Amino acid sequence: MSRSSNKIDDLNLIQGPIAKKAMTRINENGNVVGTIIVNCEGFPETTTLDSLTAATYSTHMRNLSHYASNALKEIDVLDELVVLRLVSKKTEAVVAPDHEFHLIVVMRRT
Amino acid sequence: MSRSSNKIDDLNLIQGPIAKKAMTRINENGNVVGTIIVNCEGFPETTTLDSLTAATYSTHMRNLSHYASNALKEIDVLDELVVLRLVSKKTEAVVAPDHEFHLIVVMRRT
Repeated sequence: MSRSSNKIDDLNLIQGPIAKKAMTRINENGNVVGTIIVNCEGFPETTTLDSLTAATYSTHMRNLSHYASNALKEIDVLDELVVLRLVSKKTEAVVAPDHEFHLIVVMRRT
Repeated sequence: MSRSSNKIDDLNLIQGPIAKKAMTRINENGNVVGTIIVNCEGFPETTTLDSLTAATYSTHMRNLSHYASNALKEIDVLDELVVLRLVSKKTEAVVAPDHEFHLIVVMRRT
């Protein structure tokens, strides 16, 4: 818990208090396993998960959201990806892409 | 409407009455723009959309779900993709992969 709080404190310095507040709110949800903030270079900036899991999720979810974004543009040039949700038998992962950062949330299946 | 019903009638012959009933139920939802059933070779088998849109969605959603499936296996070998949901500013597309067929549903954003 203290580890997770420290990581969120880092976020306060990097992205300001609004981002910190939002991340704290998400992480307080009982079904959330962890969150990752991926920078524009594809590396995890802040995470409450262990670094190996965070790196794996970062790479794959970022590639997936890139592919999805391009696919959407092919269907409608004016369209833009908002959220990509991946539901598996064991977990649920959500990626919200942005120009500077990607937010990834990993959840338990309810 | 009659065109859409004919396509669903074809489904009755290919995949039996349970699939037909499920597809009718999905298409009756007011937010559903259209549905596509993609065969294991990646071609649209039945659709209520025009063929170009159906082909574009089939290719991209199938590739996306393949990539997502492989990514999940890398995180946990025993895990399996259930649903991939792609939310954009204008639409929402869902793909439910299966061994023989992939079901794609395109919806309006509510």
